Amino acid sequence: MKKLINTIESFVDEACEGLALAHSDLVQFHREPRYLARATAPKGRKVGLVSGGGSGHEPLHGGFVGSGMLDAACPGEVFTSPVPDQMEAAGRAVSNGGGVLFIVKNYTGDVMNFDLAAELLRADGIDVRTVLVADDVAVQNSTWTAGRRGVGNTVFVEKLAGAVAERGASADEVERVAKKTSEAGRSMGMALTSCTVPAKGSPTFELGELEIEIGVGIHGEPGRERTALVSADEIVDRLARPVMEDLGLKRGDQVIVMTNGMGSTPLIELYVAHRHVAQLLSGSGVTIVRSLVGNYITSLDMDGCSLTVLRADDELLGLWDAPVHTPALRWGA
Amino acid sequence: MKKLINTIESFVDEACEGLALAHSDLVQFHREPRYLARATAPKGRKVGLVSGGGSGHEPLHGGFVGSGMLDAACPGEVFTSPVPDQMEAAGRAVSNGGGVLFIVKNYTGDVMNFDLAAELLRADGIDVRTVLVADDVAVQNSTWTAGRRGVGNTVFVEKLAGAVAERGASADEVERVAKKTSEAGRSMGMALTSCTVPAKGSPTFELGELEIEIGVGIHGEPGRERTALVSADEIVDRLARPVMEDLGLKRGDQVIVMTNGMGSTPLIELYVAHRHVAQLLSGSGVTIVRSLVGNYITSLDMDGCSLTVLRADDELLGLWDAPVHTPALRWGA
Repeated sequence: MKKLINTIESFVDEACEGLALAHSDLVQFHREPRYLARATAPKGRKVGLVSGGGSGHEPLHGGFVGSGMLDAACPGEVFTSPVPDQMEAAGRAVSNGGGVLFIVKNYTGDVMNFDLAAELLRADGIDVRTVLVADDVAVQNSTWTAGRRGVGNTVFVEKLAGAVAERGASADEVERVAKKTSEAGRSMGMALTSCTVPAKGSPTFELGELEIEIGVGIHGEPGRERTALVSADEIVDRLARPVMEDLGLKRGDQVIVMTNGMGSTPLIELYVAHRHVAQLLSGSGVTIVRSLVGNYITSLDMDGCSLTVLRADDELLGLWDAPVHTPALRWGA
Repeated sequence: MKKLINTIESFVDEACEGLALAHSDLVQFHREPRYLARATAPKGRKVGLVSGGGSGHEPLHGGFVGSGMLDAACPGEVFTSPVPDQMEAAGRAVSNGGGVLFIVKNYTGDVMNFDLAAELLRADGIDVRTVLVADDVAVQNSTWTAGRRGVGNTVFVEKLAGAVAERGASADEVERVAKKTSEAGRSMGMALTSCTVPAKGSPTFELGELEIEIGVGIHGEPGRERTALVSADEIVDRLARPVMEDLGLKRGDQVIVMTNGMGSTPLIELYVAHRHVAQLLSGSGVTIVRSLVGNYITSLDMDGCSLTVLRADDELLGLWDAPVHTPALRWGA
């Protein structure tokens, strides 16, 4: 296992320290229980947005803490749900009377632990809402989920709910936008290679020299099929068509698109993939109004890509364009 | 060779198309000769900034085209200098009477081809200046250079010269800032793995299972030493100390730092590395005023990292904070 790592035990804490050192104007690291929160609390009464999940998906979630997006993120160990203490402490820290929204990717451990934290906070009179992200069209149920896995659309939910929360919207309104976004996005990913979890030290799964996995999960969970290595365009076809179909995209729809790297994919290759994503959507009469190409939700050192498409009406597009200032996403600020 | 690629011949063009499709508000792709230029020409008389070099280092340079940074970028084939036609056409396109500045990484082919293009443009009465970036402290001469290689500091030169050019400064002034920045930055990189150039299809060099290369170049050129895999902190020590020493950093200096991924390095590992970069600099009484952590100048699918440190006085820091809006670097806009 070749990694930039000191010890397996200190890996996540040290990464959090590095993030907070690089962006001390934006993010503070709280060690015990572990969470990342804004360095400067937002002014006024505001719904507090908290997300979290296993580490290894950076910049998700810690890289999205900052104005216009999350108030706090709870990093678990690598590919392991954070414990309820973390979300409870983070929820308490960001609660200032406006309520708290938990943004939860649909994995059994995450769902259960966020639920427990929500109960603890509610017992103290804090209004906690939860939005579930379950956008991966590859499989109906998976290794660690009942129902669809939550993947790339999490980035969109965090951005759009974050934007409306930053404007001082009520908990009802922030919850509505988060759920609307969650329902409007679909994703699918693929792997050219496995990833290696440090604590295990060997690849999570095996792929042959010229074999790829279509529909892989962000922890290396099995996808739809293993197939021979094909061209970038053909790979994109196999991701985009199920996504577009599941979303029921029609001519004239407008979408925000993310062509995402799994962690070890060079940007030059992501641009090659994005080219065909754009061709396919345009060819179907769909208008791409905004694009992200890069590493936004990753799987450690997995090589591969995923596609997320969000049907964006004018409300969602307006929220997308609202200012954001986080380590990994920034504009208008 | 497992890559998101259609054909070797179309690889760079398709990546340029993808970039321009993802950021059509910022960047236009000109196919023949190949260059990327701003989608909207800047208003008024402005020094035109042009850079370029072999592809495979994305987001450098095309990802830095936009307001407050480059006017055009000339992508060569993978790890191959662009030809003079490209820089000539780009220079002509961005010239509007204020002069043109070429930002050139110190590789023999790049230097020669930019020089030829400069001569052609000068013959037409265009005032062309050149700034050379040669910041890699690892080796004095290298496979493809006389003198030091140009690496990470290119990002800083493009940003700071871009900022002063955007303010409408004269060619003399833009050249002065570019040269000042070029002299104030130093870098060093390392590889955990080789990279694979598509046209070759096999790794550029071989590293053992538990072997790393300290001081590697961005094309996989040999560095200072091959050594056993050591901890992230020890790797950072071996990069940071030569950089700090060569720069002659003293207590009280302020610096801008980039902890850069080589293309296949997960962000979580870069944050672990950055943590120790910050510790070392702070421990020496040096103040990090701004940080970049991520993939800014890469080597295809090489796994590893590099460190760039720029001594930044108030002038350079002010230019760093000036608005920039490019595919890969954006703030204040």
